[in-house]
Amino acid sequence: MSARIDDLLARMTWDEKIGQLQIVFRPNPDDAAALVRRGVGSTFWPPSAAATNALQRVAVEETRLGIPLLIGLDVIHGQRTIAPIPLSQAATFDPDLVRELAHLAATEARSGGVTWTFSPMADVSRDPRWGRVSEGFGEDPWLTSLLVAAMVRGYQGDDLSSPDAIVATAKHFVGYGAGEGGRDYNSADLSERALRTVHLPPFEAAVRAGAASVMAAFTSVSGIPMHAHRRLLTDVLKREWGFDGVVVGDAEGVANLVPHGVAENLADAVRQAYAAGLDIEMGGSPLGLADDELARLDPGRVDDAVRRVLRVKEALGLFENPYVDPDAEITTPDAASRALVRAAATRGSVLLHNDGTLPLVAPRRVLLTGPYATSTDHLGAWVQFFGARAGSVADELSDRRPDLEIAVEEGVDFLSPDDGGIAAAVRAAAAADVAVVLAGEPSALSGEAASRSDLRLPGRQEALIRAVAATGTPTVVMLVTGRPLVVADWIDEVAATVVVWHGGTEAPAAIIDLLLGDAEPSGRLPMSFPRSVGQIPIPYAHENTGRPASTGGTLTAEHVDVGLHGPGNVQDKYTSKYLDLPLGPQFSFGHGSGYARFAHGVPEVSASAFPAEGALDETVLTVTVEVTNTSDRRGDEVVQVYLRDVVASVTQPVRRLVGFARRTLDAGHSATVPIALPREAFALWADGWRVEPGAFDLHVGSTLAATRLVRVEAR
Amino acid sequence: MSARIDDLLARMTWDEKIGQLQIVFRPNPDDAAALVRRGVGSTFWPPSAAATNALQRVAVEETRLGIPLLIGLDVIHGQRTIAPIPLSQAATFDPDLVRELAHLAATEARSGGVTWTFSPMADVSRDPRWGRVSEGFGEDPWLTSLLVAAMVRGYQGDDLSSPDAIVATAKHFVGYGAGEGGRDYNSADLSERALRTVHLPPFEAAVRAGAASVMAAFTSVSGIPMHAHRRLLTDVLKREWGFDGVVVGDAEGVANLVPHGVAENLADAVRQAYAAGLDIEMGGSPLGLADDELARLDPGRVDDAVRRVLRVKEALGLFENPYVDPDAEITTPDAASRALVRAAATRGSVLLHNDGTLPLVAPRRVLLTGPYATSTDHLGAWVQFFGARAGSVADELSDRRPDLEIAVEEGVDFLSPDDGGIAAAVRAAAAADVAVVLAGEPSALSGEAASRSDLRLPGRQEALIRAVAATGTPTVVMLVTGRPLVVADWIDEVAATVVVWHGGTEAPAAIIDLLLGDAEPSGRLPMSFPRSVGQIPIPYAHENTGRPASTGGTLTAEHVDVGLHGPGNVQDKYTSKYLDLPLGPQFSFGHGSGYARFAHGVPEVSASAFPAEGALDETVLTVTVEVTNTSDRRGDEVVQVYLRDVVASVTQPVRRLVGFARRTLDAGHSATVPIALPREAFALWADGWRVEPGAFDLHVGSTLAATRLVRVEAR
Repeated sequence: MSARIDDLLARMTWDEKIGQLQIVFRPNPDDAAALVRRGVGSTFWPPSAAATNALQRVAVEETRLGIPLLIGLDVIHGQRTIAPIPLSQAATFDPDLVRELAHLAATEARSGGVTWTFSPMADVSRDPRWGRVSEGFGEDPWLTSLLVAAMVRGYQGDDLSSPDAIVATAKHFVGYGAGEGGRDYNSADLSERALRTVHLPPFEAAVRAGAASVMAAFTSVSGIPMHAHRRLLTDVLKREWGFDGVVVGDAEGVANLVPHGVAENLADAVRQAYAAGLDIEMGGSPLGLADDELARLDPGRVDDAVRRVLRVKEALGLFENPYVDPDAEITTPDAASRALVRAAATRGSVLLHNDGTLPLVAPRRVLLTGPYATSTDHLGAWVQFFGARAGSVADELSDRRPDLEIAVEEGVDFLSPDDGGIAAAVRAAAAADVAVVLAGEPSALSGEAASRSDLRLPGRQEALIRAVAATGTPTVVMLVTGRPLVVADWIDEVAATVVVWHGGTEAPAAIIDLLLGDAEPSGRLPMSFPRSVGQIPIPYAHENTGRPASTGGTLTAEHVDVGLHGPGNVQDKYTSKYLDLPLGPQFSFGHGSGYARFAHGVPEVSASAFPAEGALDETVLTVTVEVTNTSDRRGDEVVQVYLRDVVASVTQPVRRLVGFARRTLDAGHSATVPIALPREAFALWADGWRVEPGAFDLHVGSTLAATRLVRVEAR
Repeated sequence: MSARIDDLLARMTWDEKIGQLQIVFRPNPDDAAALVRRGVGSTFWPPSAAATNALQRVAVEETRLGIPLLIGLDVIHGQRTIAPIPLSQAATFDPDLVRELAHLAATEARSGGVTWTFSPMADVSRDPRWGRVSEGFGEDPWLTSLLVAAMVRGYQGDDLSSPDAIVATAKHFVGYGAGEGGRDYNSADLSERALRTVHLPPFEAAVRAGAASVMAAFTSVSGIPMHAHRRLLTDVLKREWGFDGVVVGDAEGVANLVPHGVAENLADAVRQAYAAGLDIEMGGSPLGLADDELARLDPGRVDDAVRRVLRVKEALGLFENPYVDPDAEITTPDAASRALVRAAATRGSVLLHNDGTLPLVAPRRVLLTGPYATSTDHLGAWVQFFGARAGSVADELSDRRPDLEIAVEEGVDFLSPDDGGIAAAVRAAAAADVAVVLAGEPSALSGEAASRSDLRLPGRQEALIRAVAATGTPTVVMLVTGRPLVVADWIDEVAATVVVWHGGTEAPAAIIDLLLGDAEPSGRLPMSFPRSVGQIPIPYAHENTGRPASTGGTLTAEHVDVGLHGPGNVQDKYTSKYLDLPLGPQFSFGHGSGYARFAHGVPEVSASAFPAEGALDETVLTVTVEVTNTSDRRGDEVVQVYLRDVVASVTQPVRRLVGFARRTLDAGHSATVPIALPREAFALWADGWRVEPGAFDLHVGSTLAATRLVRVEAR
């Protein structure tokens, strides 16, 4: 316990305490200053170093106790230099890179006085209809946990008082990714088991990585809105996990308890939220409540919340140094920043398929078509107005390769039903050596409040792709998107498709790097691409069923009417699938390759058996595989290890990721890749984590579809 | 306790006991008889009274203890006389009719020696992709509970030993309707609250109605396959609810514990299933297990299971009279049976919309088109080969109205991509006064193992509808289906649409009754019709969210890019919806009207307040509304009462059905319709059912969309 905090707490009035428990957004600096004078403890970023200093000065010099402000901002994937969206970062399978990107964002943000970001998003996303999948790390709880921890470390570093550190917020606690039908803000129904095995682990990883802040989710979980969920906010997060940072509400999330139907009015909502374990309310105004309403708050709970807030301010060094140097504020990306986000963009790009057309070898006449040929909307969702803008792919290619004959015909725009421009694109394609379709979703179609019920390319872009491909000119599609899309209607007609996501400030340069082969598309899918919206959810790590299918359905007259032959009829027809779709998603989690090719040796394990009992974080065996670059170019391979628990006391996923390693290898080179597995990789949850004795199959390979099996045993 | 059962149990060998705990299906009578000689206690129906008597004779005369057999059969919606599918029965909102239909099925089945049916399905179905929605009563737990209880009473009557009674089986306990992605047999993740409020109530209703049998579901619930779910099978079903009948496994459901990944092998699966509370295994063969494996079963549990089986046999009167009179076996429908199922088919048909074209007034030249113009596939899923077949709509209309000029052009078939026949249908439509498109899904597309990812009409039927409607000839669609379909692409182009479901043996007659106005389509939707497969699930009784939407999304360039204006940005864009769909389903639960029109008066309540404390089944108030038939024809109205708990301690549905009343009124007549509400209508579940003091809004009207509000209060 800090003596300063004890002392302050002893001196604070009730109103001064309540003031510390909220963050407000007031675009007008006078309005913000007035609220700070009244004691509000946190504000959104003004947005400049000078304006931040001015606000801090009000707090320090014009309030009785001079407590500095927490300055919050949604720094989601970059402050000035915009990195690829988090879903793209997840595709890198590269925690170090994710940490570096967060560190860059923290450095830029703190230089302007920001001390608190509402990132990373730790929600596991299994429904691509939900727009906020772009902000997260995909469908796998373990990969998400690793990357959440990496991002927390990147933001916070080792010392929050450093000029390159800001407070990270693991959000949205919890279940926000499981909203009904993928509709944003919708209800989640989750068993305790689903919470413990899928949704809570990334938050626990954030807490273990030291995250000083956690944000409550808008959703209700099994009947209790998270802003009023005492069991999860207090019993699990704070007590079971020992989280000693602040729980912040989401925007108006406390007020939203009224439409949720669990609070009579705002005063009741505020009381419920603080009682449940919320520490800082966002957007509401408890200062505006009448004294008798505030008096209903529990004084012990208020003191605990204030203590948490002051602890964060102290860790940030704000009591010693509330100001930043306006001359040192970083307002534009430097070359190193640009290089970092550009490398990240190619490292997270996923080559879905390629007949050899990519990279373009000695291209001469190139058609750029599709709305992203000229659009500069590459930053992705959740970027502030001051983020460094991207250029266009057409400009980038013209600048870099003035030697090429470049035709630019957008053909269609993002959303319009007008396909009148397709004819010109087709003519241009016929006259080109290669057609590059830059298709996708504009940034506003993913992110918050951007759920879609139809996951095909919007507007008439699919028609453009089909028409261009039909010319016979080799056609490649660069897919600029914030979510997995349904590509079934056109993907078999094109030569290659690369998912480049929303790639940030340097996206156009990265896209040209990929087209020309100056960089490898070396990402792997962090979230499956469904065949159709009608098969959602289709996570790769779905549970074993009693009637697994070996083939998909075939909706023909001969197949639909097989009759019922009594209770022995469990083969073929009587399996878990759709009548009208092949099995599984179009492209599964983990899918992707580069331009280079790799061969894998037979995987070996350091031990074929290990003790079931023991510390969960102890390494129990190492899987080793020899990887050889069999191609004529340098490239990256991601070795993936999936586990299947053969027999368990509770139903387990058919496979789940437990390890991976990324290696860059020169042409013809080999490397021995060891992947250590801790005991917890083998654990299941049944009122706690434990390893059950028995057999486990490890599937080792370059994707889920290309693995070799090693069986090991826990004894 | 019966002395006979005690005595038998005392005399039975271990093998004789184990034999009682299984039901086998052997189509060859000699195979079946051999198993009965070895002690198997239940078989599937042979299928005739004579063959059943022969098997019973083996049991009674050729086994040491002479215990008669339980004779099981999937009598789902009729034995010989096939009634509409259960989903259509649910649309009647008529528990008495559902009971009568079950009684008819029981009478026919028992006359042939059947003593045990695997019906009703009590699974709440909120995902129309799942094929078995056809076997259930739709999406509402309360309506499903009422109708499950009615069906149980219809099958079992007051005395199971009556010649018109068979044992009912509430299936599939529990959560089978919640399989992931609507894929049959898939895993269900359900919170305890979802179990208690949505999925368990219809089973509890079945138990209260006296159901003597419950079937375990294929699915796993939150990690535990139901065939091994001790907490739900034993602790909840048997102990908490006092269920003293038999729990039967589903076909191979015990063996399926191996692919579920929770059992090492069949012996382990059998042991786990009986230990969890299963009493009769279906399809497996514990008799085939080695003695040392059987010895692992708990003797007390085996005795309990045997006692349950013998109790059911005793209740059926089988010890006194194991045989049936072969001369009294009912093998074909009589006139009364036909009239009953025909009336049920129209009573469950739902008029989605009608511009006045229906009923056809003095039609002269009528085109019948679509695959169901001539198809006889009206029976629906889960009908045995001996069910009385239906004819075709074309034959029925020709027979009844030889005066009409009837053209028949199918145009397309159910599944084929061939649309070459549409031209002929269009020519015929142009020459007709009215075009009737008989479109739909063949029976094999719903029912077990018939999940679909695409819910539009299969094949080229939508193209047929659009082409016929484009002729300008008034076009009506009769939708023959086992599930809710997506109709958005064509419904606005036709004059009227009636959902006639799979209507059973008398479906063609019922369809003609509806077309000609000889009967009213007087059903209401028991399950919402989604706008697209991409908005599933979209139950009407979804929970309150913190950000309810007042309008749907509009995916245009102007609307997608509203920007982020900070934390105050919760209006308009920031609500729970899809960017690309209007709010809500295409047609909600409760939707439907007849040809007659009704006006409703202002609803009144017998008391505006009632005590929150008290017996849950006590009537606390009665809602009364005056209903007037304002049209010139006799018709049926279904008054519906929905409840909204204004503020509750846990998130509640936006509205849920708590009462309804069906009334037939002559033209111009009025009736005062009272609907009594018990205290439990106001209850919520939070570790138990209770009524919380506070306000409740009752929405009273003809559909969810046309209600008037009365507020009442629990004190």
